[in-house]
Amino acid sequence: MNFPSKLLEDAVLEVAKLPGIGKKTALRLVLHLLKKESKDSESLAHALLNAREHILYCKKCHTISDHEICDICTNNRRDQRVVCVVEDIRDVLAIENTNQYFGVYHVLGGVISPMERIGPDQLNINSLIERVLTDTEIKEVILGLSPTMEGDTTAFFITKKLKSYPIKISTIARGIPFGGELEYMDEVTLGRSIATRTLFESKED
Amino acid sequence: MNFPSKLLEDAVLEVAKLPGIGKKTALRLVLHLLKKESKDSESLAHALLNAREHILYCKKCHTISDHEICDICTNNRRDQRVVCVVEDIRDVLAIENTNQYFGVYHVLGGVISPMERIGPDQLNINSLIERVLTDTEIKEVILGLSPTMEGDTTAFFITKKLKSYPIKISTIARGIPFGGELEYMDEVTLGRSIATRTLFESKED
Repeated sequence: MNFPSKLLEDAVLEVAKLPGIGKKTALRLVLHLLKKESKDSESLAHALLNAREHILYCKKCHTISDHEICDICTNNRRDQRVVCVVEDIRDVLAIENTNQYFGVYHVLGGVISPMERIGPDQLNINSLIERVLTDTEIKEVILGLSPTMEGDTTAFFITKKLKSYPIKISTIARGIPFGGELEYMDEVTLGRSIATRTLFESKED
Repeated sequence: MNFPSKLLEDAVLEVAKLPGIGKKTALRLVLHLLKKESKDSESLAHALLNAREHILYCKKCHTISDHEICDICTNNRRDQRVVCVVEDIRDVLAIENTNQYFGVYHVLGGVISPMERIGPDQLNINSLIERVLTDTEIKEVILGLSPTMEGDTTAFFITKKLKSYPIKISTIARGIPFGGELEYMDEVTLGRSIATRTLFESKED
């Protein structure tokens, strides 16, 4: 693409560096900003720089926070005995949105992926072990990782590391998603969902 | 969505103001920037602000430019007798990419749209009339507008305004796009493409 202006080109190429945004979309976004008042571009740029510079990560669970320890970790009404291990902060937000989980989190910052050269040392796994070791209040670790090759590898690695501690280790349920149709489900999911079926509770008692 | 950090929330909401970007995508983009070095966020913010502040619009054809008159308008090798009228600068880039047009442009900055309260006065239509009136070199105006209700209205309006001047007015061809399959084409396009069929040039002479 030949740009009629170097300034435009610079802006488009910078925006196109963002994941999932190609040059055409970047051009559309930049032209949108050019049409708007300059204070709109300023507040966008300011918010991005401000976030990049001042955002902290909770020292306990590594989620994004404005404080040293995040609001979830300091919340007395959360069950500090249950720790849900997730890949990144988007998973924390997704689980929080369900309003069904009242424990705390531990954000790994990724999953083990030899293809992308991410090993256990690049992730917050050691701090999880440390946390389980020092915080005797913790009774259960839930592995809330995606059911992918990398997620499973990471779950396996953490399970092995935590095996010797007197805590429960569980993983979030896998099966047919709500609203999913059996006939369109892949074989692995469907096969597993039969193998790991749950019994209806007895209604006799 | 409940954000664990005000700074994160601000950044996500600002990014989500961009067209076609929802909150989830915005969150993904912001988290990407947070993972990267801070100089990446800085160069993005800088490029956006710089573009917004310093980009000029060509005084002749209203396309984006780094100079008062753009490179196309000052280029002696372009045919200054033919002016292609387009909706916005993306259309200029698209036509330039074809390498098949050697005239100059006139960017309207939009199309007439009563729904969005855009009338002829908000567009660069008067400056087009002015340009045709003063620049006697101009021999043809090509209307390169999208075949939509708004594009057709705008084309009709401009045609009426230019009718009394001694110039040719043409519009880009409409028909079945290259690679398009007849059976999937809508009735209007297919119907028009038969009505406005082009004769093969005679091979006799």
